Amino acid sequence: MNKVSQILVGGALGLSILTAASAADPKPQDTVDYRKSVYTIIGWNFAPIGAMMKGEVPFDAAAVVRHAQYVEMMSKAAPEGFTKGSGPDAVKDTEAKPEIWTNWDKFEAKMNDFQQEAAKLTEVAKGGNEGAIKAQFGKTAETCKACHKAFRKD
Amino acid sequence: MNKVSQILVGGALGLSILTAASAADPKPQDTVDYRKSVYTIIGWNFAPIGAMMKGEVPFDAAAVVRHAQYVEMMSKAAPEGFTKGSGPDAVKDTEAKPEIWTNWDKFEAKMNDFQQEAAKLTEVAKGGNEGAIKAQFGKTAETCKACHKAFRKD
Repeated sequence: MNKVSQILVGGALGLSILTAASAADPKPQDTVDYRKSVYTIIGWNFAPIGAMMKGEVPFDAAAVVRHAQYVEMMSKAAPEGFTKGSGPDAVKDTEAKPEIWTNWDKFEAKMNDFQQEAAKLTEVAKGGNEGAIKAQFGKTAETCKACHKAFRKD
Repeated sequence: MNKVSQILVGGALGLSILTAASAADPKPQDTVDYRKSVYTIIGWNFAPIGAMMKGEVPFDAAAVVRHAQYVEMMSKAAPEGFTKGSGPDAVKDTEAKPEIWTNWDKFEAKMNDFQQEAAKLTEVAKGGNEGAIKAQFGKTAETCKACHKAFRKD
């Protein structure tokens, strides 16, 4: 039974549909599943912006705004996926390096860089200027790479 | 190499960092990974609201708003995870029933119900009234269950 099933099992009025474990106290594997999901959605939305920037698909200003908003929202959702105890010592299937937790200030700074550039990408996207979007897309991508290089196993 | 790595491979300026396949033309498995991620994030955010409604954790109005906003955003992100050709005939690891695509109008109606109730949950959450939130949480949960019952394998 998957997570959503666990959440929805039971009562019809939403008052008894949660298992205690699934809500207040996520297990390490749940946290890892969550953070992977966050990055999957970031990639899903970042990729089509890049395809437009490369000219592979036609530029669509409204689509860029929508995708950028999802990247921004997910950048703000990412930190809660890195709670203590969700590293490679607790779960097998993660590319997160232990350095995230032993060097938290540096990780937090890089996460903050990503959040800031992603927020700017939404702003710039709303302006609709393709050249400006391309430049800001590049800056945002740099923050992805910088964090992955330091804190993710390849 | 995972999806984000594929996206970020290559050029330093974000102009050549995308593989063609990853962006303009997602593979069925990418689409399935995406929609699973959407529902993982929905569950992650829906669960703590439920825990508050059950009194397992203290009511926190600001947290409810934040979680409800993520559920709402993800409800709007869900449909693009159900493109034609991403059903159980194309990929093994999915609980999506073929009826989604053979009975698309009904699926779309149930998705729409979810989106509407999730949007209302954000609205109600902003009001901060715990009783009203509890009622709207229940209505939203009902739309989850109705769609799962019709369109998801258990």
